[in-house]
Amino acid sequence: MTIADRWLLPDGMDEVLPPQASRMEELRRALLDLYQRWGYDQVMPPPVEFLDSLLTGTGTDLDLQTFKLTDQPTGRMMGVSADVTPQVARMDSHSMKRQGPVRLCYCTNVLRAKADQHQGGRSPVQVGVELFGHAGLEADLEVLQLALASLKAAGADEVHLALGHIGIYRSLVQAAGLDIEQERALFAALELKSPGELAARVKESVDDASLADMFMALGRLHGGPEVLDEAREAFVEAPAPVGAALDQLRALQRGVLAEHPEVALYVDLAELRGYQYHTGMMFAAYAPGYGQALAKGGRYDDTGRAFGRARPATGFSMDLKLLATLVSVASAHDGIWAPAEGSGLREAVSVLRERGERVVQALPGQRTGPEAHRCDRILEKRDGRWVVMSLAASSSDRA
Amino acid sequence: MTIADRWLLPDGMDEVLPPQASRMEELRRALLDLYQRWGYDQVMPPPVEFLDSLLTGTGTDLDLQTFKLTDQPTGRMMGVSADVTPQVARMDSHSMKRQGPVRLCYCTNVLRAKADQHQGGRSPVQVGVELFGHAGLEADLEVLQLALASLKAAGADEVHLALGHIGIYRSLVQAAGLDIEQERALFAALELKSPGELAARVKESVDDASLADMFMALGRLHGGPEVLDEAREAFVEAPAPVGAALDQLRALQRGVLAEHPEVALYVDLAELRGYQYHTGMMFAAYAPGYGQALAKGGRYDDTGRAFGRARPATGFSMDLKLLATLVSVASAHDGIWAPAEGSGLREAVSVLRERGERVVQALPGQRTGPEAHRCDRILEKRDGRWVVMSLAASSSDRA
Repeated sequence: MTIADRWLLPDGMDEVLPPQASRMEELRRALLDLYQRWGYDQVMPPPVEFLDSLLTGTGTDLDLQTFKLTDQPTGRMMGVSADVTPQVARMDSHSMKRQGPVRLCYCTNVLRAKADQHQGGRSPVQVGVELFGHAGLEADLEVLQLALASLKAAGADEVHLALGHIGIYRSLVQAAGLDIEQERALFAALELKSPGELAARVKESVDDASLADMFMALGRLHGGPEVLDEAREAFVEAPAPVGAALDQLRALQRGVLAEHPEVALYVDLAELRGYQYHTGMMFAAYAPGYGQALAKGGRYDDTGRAFGRARPATGFSMDLKLLATLVSVASAHDGIWAPAEGSGLREAVSVLRERGERVVQALPGQRTGPEAHRCDRILEKRDGRWVVMSLAASSSDRA
Repeated sequence: MTIADRWLLPDGMDEVLPPQASRMEELRRALLDLYQRWGYDQVMPPPVEFLDSLLTGTGTDLDLQTFKLTDQPTGRMMGVSADVTPQVARMDSHSMKRQGPVRLCYCTNVLRAKADQHQGGRSPVQVGVELFGHAGLEADLEVLQLALASLKAAGADEVHLALGHIGIYRSLVQAAGLDIEQERALFAALELKSPGELAARVKESVDDASLADMFMALGRLHGGPEVLDEAREAFVEAPAPVGAALDQLRALQRGVLAEHPEVALYVDLAELRGYQYHTGMMFAAYAPGYGQALAKGGRYDDTGRAFGRARPATGFSMDLKLLATLVSVASAHDGIWAPAEGSGLREAVSVLRERGERVVQALPGQRTGPEAHRCDRILEKRDGRWVVMSLAASSSDRA
């Protein structure tokens, strides 16, 4: 390997330079502060766990996305966290064991073995919240509202919210008695959003004419809030949980629009993308110019069962790296340039830093000046006292 | 695997629960703000890099500490970052290419394949600074002062600072013409701090009587600042770089004590622990009750050479997880408990949150009360207005 390519980074494993890294830090703080004000306590899940606990009940998608490592002391397989949500569910269910609703938030690096068109890079900084212990609509609505508040805090002016409910698809699959292979083929056809493909799969697997119509409707029912009215008609003969899911979606839609009338709401009953552990309502929020969702979430009850405590759960997560690109940033030229030495200088610099000023001290022999270090002022000794001068004033004095 | 042990975490891969996670977040912010005020720009190195770039010029210790992964798209080997310092050196040398002194800081998760008595857990959060582009003592002193300021910010009252210089040992090894095996045996004896073992290795490998005496002195010379005077005598016949290194240590010692007279300074000329890429002064800071160093750093010039630009460099790093245990924390009971619903409630809650208050909203049917959610106040409707009442006042009213 030559010098020239030694620095090439693996695809999707990015480094973040100034000023973008500061922007990410600023946004991290804004979001965690927001969650704290909504009553969400911060946790830090372990970056690595044994595979058995990491992948319990999470489906094969997450398995394929997880980097595997050998634990040298035990010889057991470990996985690097690719998604924090199931880890936080384990923490709620096993480590914390609190009664009643528990609100948790986090902001942490995760790694993904493969780049995914829906997920962006392979080293996202996952930030989000989880609300455990409440099965009601109010919890889903709180999480939805908080996702919208997060995007606002990140500077998204125009938000498109896609709303769905995995319960509709699940109920139909159950009613039709599909086996795993049939279900997968149907799922793939719905994901493709291809009516022809869907019709072929439905014809193959679904004997009941009424259910077949409903599967076809599932592929068609996406659009504005009016989709829910159409769905009511299309699913009038559907199993009871389908009606309940539609009621939930209508209530969520009303709740979101009451507080965020500016949000463009989109209902997609076949929005199953990335569904792995979800059990109820699902949502994804988009902004113009971004192909991938900025926030994704939904309900995923009972993930904690494997750890001894089945709990209702709902939440969402975002990629801080992606989110920080919503607003463009420039480096601030706001520092004070201090000379390398002088009597009383150390104290003067300390006082300025304690006041919150950025003070860059010159090093002996240094050839770069204040501008190169983003300073707009300079610390100078005048009449025996250290004073801060604007850079322009100081140079004109000297000239 | 049963439910009972599915949750067991791999050794040294910890989760952090509330309130400790908030304490870590608070300290993260305090430290990054401190570095920003000293002129250090934040960067975020990639969590994974190709092994060639990750381990260039860093020695075998880091190699053994690095988890290896296969990059599926290319089939090349990657490593998970086990130490951010060489990564930041690459970023300075290749990605940023700025002229003159460059000050960078970071706070990020790293992973280590093996637990190490000197390094603590296998999933530290590494926080620190690097100063590139200046070979002088002033840069080393700035970094030392900033390490001490960091420990103060973390709440360390009593700090012990061990100061050494790898140049002394390196010069003696070079003068004695030791081969790699001899050098390793000597190094191990010095690390053991066993005079008998050291004498045996010196007798084996060092023919020159004067150099042999100096190696023996190296094993002996540790203690208070007076060690530097003794060293001056012991190394009077040593190669010139040894004298220069001693001068540097003396100047650093003077600089540190001028600003931090409270620091207990300890000089250890055989302090070589963890030296992998270091080339000059080295230091480690300790606090009572902690077996491992809280901060470690030193000079490591020319690490960037492999990436096309050799640059002087000095810096230090700490483990935020360890550092956050210096001060014990309790959960604050400072929230406001809001009911599940009520007219005008949503607006009242919003206003409180905008003011920075933590407002936990009850969910319908919830059985846990305000105390369980760390609230000391309650939002109640009185005479048609939402008012915040202290929890005590509110309950006595009701009684």
